[in-house]
Amino acid sequence: MTILTLSKNGTIPDEIKAIARKEGIDPEILRTRVADGSVIAVKNSRRKTLIAPLGIGKGLKTKVNANIGTSGDLSEIPLELKKLEAAVEAGADAVMDLSTGSGVDETRRTIIENSPIPVGTVPIYQAALEAVKRGKSFVEMEPEEFFECIEKHAEDGVDFVTVHCGITMESVESLKRHGRVMGVVSRGGALMTEWMLRNRKENPLYEHFDKMIAIAKKYDLVLSLGDALRPGAIADASDNAQIMELLTLGRLTLEARKSGVQIMIEGPGHMPMNQIEANVVLEKKICQEAPFYVLGPLVTDVAAGYDHISSAIGGAIAAAAGADFLCYVTPAEHLRLPSVEDVRTGVIASRIAAHAADIVKGVKGAQEWDMNMSMARKALDWHKQYSLSIDPERAKELRESLPPADLEVCTMCGAFCAIKLQKG
Amino acid sequence: MTILTLSKNGTIPDEIKAIARKEGIDPEILRTRVADGSVIAVKNSRRKTLIAPLGIGKGLKTKVNANIGTSGDLSEIPLELKKLEAAVEAGADAVMDLSTGSGVDETRRTIIENSPIPVGTVPIYQAALEAVKRGKSFVEMEPEEFFECIEKHAEDGVDFVTVHCGITMESVESLKRHGRVMGVVSRGGALMTEWMLRNRKENPLYEHFDKMIAIAKKYDLVLSLGDALRPGAIADASDNAQIMELLTLGRLTLEARKSGVQIMIEGPGHMPMNQIEANVVLEKKICQEAPFYVLGPLVTDVAAGYDHISSAIGGAIAAAAGADFLCYVTPAEHLRLPSVEDVRTGVIASRIAAHAADIVKGVKGAQEWDMNMSMARKALDWHKQYSLSIDPERAKELRESLPPADLEVCTMCGAFCAIKLQKG
Repeated sequence: MTILTLSKNGTIPDEIKAIARKEGIDPEILRTRVADGSVIAVKNSRRKTLIAPLGIGKGLKTKVNANIGTSGDLSEIPLELKKLEAAVEAGADAVMDLSTGSGVDETRRTIIENSPIPVGTVPIYQAALEAVKRGKSFVEMEPEEFFECIEKHAEDGVDFVTVHCGITMESVESLKRHGRVMGVVSRGGALMTEWMLRNRKENPLYEHFDKMIAIAKKYDLVLSLGDALRPGAIADASDNAQIMELLTLGRLTLEARKSGVQIMIEGPGHMPMNQIEANVVLEKKICQEAPFYVLGPLVTDVAAGYDHISSAIGGAIAAAAGADFLCYVTPAEHLRLPSVEDVRTGVIASRIAAHAADIVKGVKGAQEWDMNMSMARKALDWHKQYSLSIDPERAKELRESLPPADLEVCTMCGAFCAIKLQKG
Repeated sequence: MTILTLSKNGTIPDEIKAIARKEGIDPEILRTRVADGSVIAVKNSRRKTLIAPLGIGKGLKTKVNANIGTSGDLSEIPLELKKLEAAVEAGADAVMDLSTGSGVDETRRTIIENSPIPVGTVPIYQAALEAVKRGKSFVEMEPEEFFECIEKHAEDGVDFVTVHCGITMESVESLKRHGRVMGVVSRGGALMTEWMLRNRKENPLYEHFDKMIAIAKKYDLVLSLGDALRPGAIADASDNAQIMELLTLGRLTLEARKSGVQIMIEGPGHMPMNQIEANVVLEKKICQEAPFYVLGPLVTDVAAGYDHISSAIGGAIAAAAGADFLCYVTPAEHLRLPSVEDVRTGVIASRIAAHAADIVKGVKGAQEWDMNMSMARKALDWHKQYSLSIDPERAKELRESLPPADLEVCTMCGAFCAIKLQKG
């Protein structure tokens, strides 16, 4: 039985007990939330590496995901392990391996083996890669091959997969009818759209959603229902196609839950600040409180090189409105594959957004963290300030790069330190 | 006659015409806003360097200020000129020279001479420095000396000054009564508090506000009414003392306007996300639409080393709610005097926040910028993407640091580029 089925039956599985302990929440309350789908416990039942299950959803700390993985231009497993390490050290709660370089099976397995946190993937990337390898075009793939690829990932121990089940002939038609500045910017979405249009057939991941459910059930795999039609431009946000896909995801959510399969919903994307809250409210309503996993949102299109900042703004607003899981965006977004340093920066930026939201969501421990930091500041206790900083090493490094003559203060205000002045 | 008096009398001064042109707004509409105080035109009438006057307020592009200046630990004029250059290049609309090192007169004059954008200062820092130089303590200063120092700055051509007029015996008493985690964290506020408590006298900048008005009038100097009691901890935000000071600033605003003196109001500080909008609404109401100049707000206390990100989150929310002028916060905040690189990063982070807000405020040209970027993306026109990026050099540098095999795409998605897939 899956975690969801056990929870519905009134049993508290070990995974839920572990999450309850970590979040400081009552296990029975958590069980009821898992049972109604507002919280998910992420961990593949066949995961070989011992990892703590990850709780995502209502009342829990907002979580952060880091996307890593190779591409055709840069494909080195040791580099990916460094990114994994950087993500974990910086405090990511999960990573996704989005590799599309050489040896993706080996890359994925190595990442899973080495990751102390849940790992997600987008199996369709590999399906597309392998089709090309076998001299076929992606559009010639048989529906069965999609599901084989997804099951292979599940067998390897992947904890959650992005599956683009919500894009249908109807939403592709809507997209064409209404138009868009950027069209489809999701890689998986673009692949599925191409497949559907060329084959003039419905999306197999939608049509045969029961097969997806069967695989997910077998491995207790969390399905992250992808937003193939997420807006890739401020101008495209909250359009007909995006919302139509969300409605489909809402229906699939209920279907999966009935079968004991845990679901989260992926969300935008590029979006002006004043539409973010509405999108979160809508997702929560349409998908009946399913955890919301947002990429960004990016609040402007023009911040290339600094999209971690654009994303921190959007992510904080989304999380404060109820989003549960932030997919980081790095400074490299729109420009290149992220470096190890980009990964680190991206995770920290998202953690700031998540924490700022947790303060106002009233998540346990969030306000206390800030209170402790403020008291350390008031006491001019620099070591405590470092250790309470979101990135202790960076805080220490910055202050010590320009040591003040008076070690009680810093070089910004020196003798004019307001805190010191008040001490008299 | 000052810009405000002329505007009230129905004349459109040249400064307003210049701002109207730059913002693409009708000069007569702008005049009425200057006349009612919801917009200010920042430029000292005696400024020797030819600069464009800066418009701040209702309906205008959200502006960004960069704080530069020496401290006791690091005081080199050439370094400050580099910071000035970095701020201007990164797109700051104004700088404040907060020098407290050696030779502050020379530093300030050199900055003013070299700055193509308005310069602000906090004269009380120098007043405090000079008292110490003359072997006196700050608390022994005569009220007259405060005003002499302010006038000296105005004479030098400073365009706006922060003056802590709103902190009074009453608000200091309130602070004591209600308590606070961090007390007074504004440097100027801490100095004034010390002066009042030791001398058991009312704040001279409040008591003799008429003298301040006389100086401001003479030079058409904008008074930026400082928030001496701004919260320095999430826990202290929107407390009795902070709001009491705001009420005082509201009264002073009306007094200054009556005399033809332009006013803006300074705001927090450290503040949880869900209090920011309320603070902006309150400022606009209490201070009758006076432009709001916010420092941050920082949405968490724990982001030392990354406070530019914490500040971008808070600044975007504040600006979207109606704040008009964002004072940047750099990665060095709480840790050290900012470096040239910190200045640059801080300005860009604040500009992202300002622009994200301008998109939703409907500021002229804001959405068009994003639309143009999206069209350049859709066209895979990388040179256009660079030139439309908020920091063109950085965008170019990032993509070119890892050149893709296929020059049409980037190394993130390579052959899986969704845009390219759609081109077919």
